[in-house]
Amino acid sequence: MTRIAVDAMGGDFAPGEIVKGAVWAAQDYNVPIELVGQIDKIQEVLDEIAKKGIRSNRGGYFVKNIKVDLSKLDIKLTQADEIIEMGEAPGVAIRKKKKSSIVLAVDAVAKGSSDAVVAAGSTGAAMASSLFGLGRLKGIERPAIAATLPTKKEPVILIDAGANSACSPEMLMQFATMGATFAKSVYNRETPRIGVLNIGEEEEKGNQLVKDTHKLLKENKIGLKFIGNIEGKELFQGDVDVVVCDGFVGNVALKTIEGCSMMLFKLIQQEFKQDILSKIVGLLAKPFMKRIYKRINYEEFGGALLLGVKGITVISHGRSSSYAIKNAVRVAKEAVESGVNKKIAELIN
Amino acid sequence: MTRIAVDAMGGDFAPGEIVKGAVWAAQDYNVPIELVGQIDKIQEVLDEIAKKGIRSNRGGYFVKNIKVDLSKLDIKLTQADEIIEMGEAPGVAIRKKKKSSIVLAVDAVAKGSSDAVVAAGSTGAAMASSLFGLGRLKGIERPAIAATLPTKKEPVILIDAGANSACSPEMLMQFATMGATFAKSVYNRETPRIGVLNIGEEEEKGNQLVKDTHKLLKENKIGLKFIGNIEGKELFQGDVDVVVCDGFVGNVALKTIEGCSMMLFKLIQQEFKQDILSKIVGLLAKPFMKRIYKRINYEEFGGALLLGVKGITVISHGRSSSYAIKNAVRVAKEAVESGVNKKIAELIN
Repeated sequence: MTRIAVDAMGGDFAPGEIVKGAVWAAQDYNVPIELVGQIDKIQEVLDEIAKKGIRSNRGGYFVKNIKVDLSKLDIKLTQADEIIEMGEAPGVAIRKKKKSSIVLAVDAVAKGSSDAVVAAGSTGAAMASSLFGLGRLKGIERPAIAATLPTKKEPVILIDAGANSACSPEMLMQFATMGATFAKSVYNRETPRIGVLNIGEEEEKGNQLVKDTHKLLKENKIGLKFIGNIEGKELFQGDVDVVVCDGFVGNVALKTIEGCSMMLFKLIQQEFKQDILSKIVGLLAKPFMKRIYKRINYEEFGGALLLGVKGITVISHGRSSSYAIKNAVRVAKEAVESGVNKKIAELIN
Repeated sequence: MTRIAVDAMGGDFAPGEIVKGAVWAAQDYNVPIELVGQIDKIQEVLDEIAKKGIRSNRGGYFVKNIKVDLSKLDIKLTQADEIIEMGEAPGVAIRKKKKSSIVLAVDAVAKGSSDAVVAAGSTGAAMASSLFGLGRLKGIERPAIAATLPTKKEPVILIDAGANSACSPEMLMQFATMGATFAKSVYNRETPRIGVLNIGEEEEKGNQLVKDTHKLLKENKIGLKFIGNIEGKELFQGDVDVVVCDGFVGNVALKTIEGCSMMLFKLIQQEFKQDILSKIVGLLAKPFMKRIYKRINYEEFGGALLLGVKGITVISHGRSSSYAIKNAVRVAKEAVESGVNKKIAELIN
C-alpha cells in the first residue's frame, strides 16, 4: 500500500500544521504516512490531536474541528535531528545536513519505506535532495516543477514552475512530455493540449527559446498535441491542459497569480468593512466569496509535483496550512498510484 | 498648449470608441486633440457625438451619457488612407504603409503639430513607427514599455512590459533609470524604490540576466534607490515604485495579471447568478464590486508609456473603450507636461 513520507519540519507553520495535515490525510484518504523530523516535537502535536482533534485556522476561510482516532491510523515516525532553513544554499545544505528532515524523507523513498515525499520547506532543498537522493529518470535532462492552476474550466498544468532558471528548447520539449503524461495519468485528460507560454499568438513571437521550442513541438513525432502559443491572459480560459515555459518565467507567473488573487480578495475584504451597510452586504456575500476562494486557493491543489526524478516529490507552499498538506498527500498518493513516472520513462525513451 | 494625436483607426473598437474617448478627454481635460485616420469615418462618429453625446457601454461596468459641445473643443482632423492590421509584421508594415494612421500620428509629433501619440492598435506597429519616426533619446540603447499596475497601495510601474524579448543587464539598468524618472515626474514619487523582478529575494537567485542586473543596480552611482529583488507576489504590496524586467517576462506577467483578474470577476459574476438568493446578494454587492473593478481595471491607467523615444507614445490596450482612451489621453498629457523625456536624457548622459 502506498505510504507517503512527510517532512514534518519544513514550512512556515511546521511542525504543527504539517503533522495535522498529514494525519488528516491519513484519516480522510486511508493512506499510511511516515512523519520525518524531531520525534519529540511531532509527538507533542500528535498528543494535541489525540486530545482536541484537528483545528485549523490557517488558509483564510477554513476552520475545521475534526476528531481523530490515532490508533486506527498507520503513522510511522522517523527521527531527523537537523532542519534545513529557508535561507540556506540548497546544494551545500543537503550535503552538510545529512540528518535533516528533508534529506531523510527523500531517503525513505529511496530505501522503499515510503513511496512519495511531501515537503513544504525550502523548495531548493526539496529539489536538490530529490535529485541527489532519487536520481533522474533515464533520458530526462533536468527535473521540472509542474504546478496546477485554476482556470474558468478545468485546472491547467504549468511546467516548469521554478526548477530551472535557464533552459534549452530540448528541455522544454521534455517538460511538455512530462506535463502531458501527468495531465493524462493524474487528471485523466485523454489527449492533453500543450501550449508554449509566449507574448503573442504568432509563431515568430517571443525570445529565441520559445521560438525554437515552438518548432520542436510542432514537429514532434511522439504524439504530443501541440496547440501553439498561449498568452498570459489565456492561461485562465481552460482551453489548454499543459503550458510549457522555463522555470524563471513560470515562477514569476505562478507568484504573480498568487499575489494578484490575494490582492483582489484583500480589496474585497476592505470594501466590505467600510460601514454598517457594507458589513451587512459583506456578510451576505461571504458564502459566495468562500466558494470562489476555495476554487482558486492554491491550498486546494496541495502542491506542485517535481517531475523527472525516480520517485514522487510534492513541493508545497511555504505557508501551507494543514488543509494544504492534506491535499498535498492526496496529490502524492494519486501520482504514485497513476504510475506517472513509469509512463514518462516510456514516452521519453 | 499640449496637443495629443490619436490614432483613430487602431484598436478593436475603432474608430467609434477611439474618437469618443479622444473627444471625451478633450472636453474633460481641456486638451486639444488631433484625430488621425479616415476623415469620413471619423466625421460619422463626430456627428453621432454631436447628436447623442457619448454613450459608452464598453469597459464592463461603465455606462455613461455625456453631452458634448463640439464647437467648444479644439479638434484637428488629419487624413490617413491606410490602416495597419493586428497581424502584420510591424517593421514591414510601417515601411509599406507610409499613409497609415499610426505612421501619420507619429509623424504629427515628429513635425510638431502634436506633442504625443495615443495608439490602441498593433503594439508592434506603434513601437516601430515611434522608434523610426521619432528616434531614440540620446544614450538610450532600446526603448521600453512602462506599464502601470494596481497594488494594495499606490500603483507600481513595470518596465519593460513587452518591447524587448531579449535584454542585456545594461538595458535593464537603463529601464530602471527611465522608470524611476517616470515615477518621479508623472507619479510624484520623491525617491522611487526600484526592484528587479525575480524568483527569490536572495541576491544569487534567478537567471544570469537578473543576477548581473542586480549587481549593476546595487553599484549604481546615479542615485537610483535599489531595494533588491521583487517576487511576483510582492508586485501587489505597493512597497516598490518601479519593477524592472526583460520584455518577455514583463509581458507574461502583465497579461497573466489581466487574465487572472478577469477570471476572478467572471467567477464572482457566475456565483451571483446561481439562483434567486445569489442574484439578490449579487445586486447588493454590485456597487462594491464596481469600486474594486474600477481600481484594478487597466482602463483606469489608460495605457502604457513607450519610454526612450524622442516623444511620448501611449500604447493602449487593443480592447480599449472610450473610457480607456480618455485616460490614455490624460496620461499622454501628463507625460508631456512633466517633461519626462528631458529628465531621462539628463539622467542617462
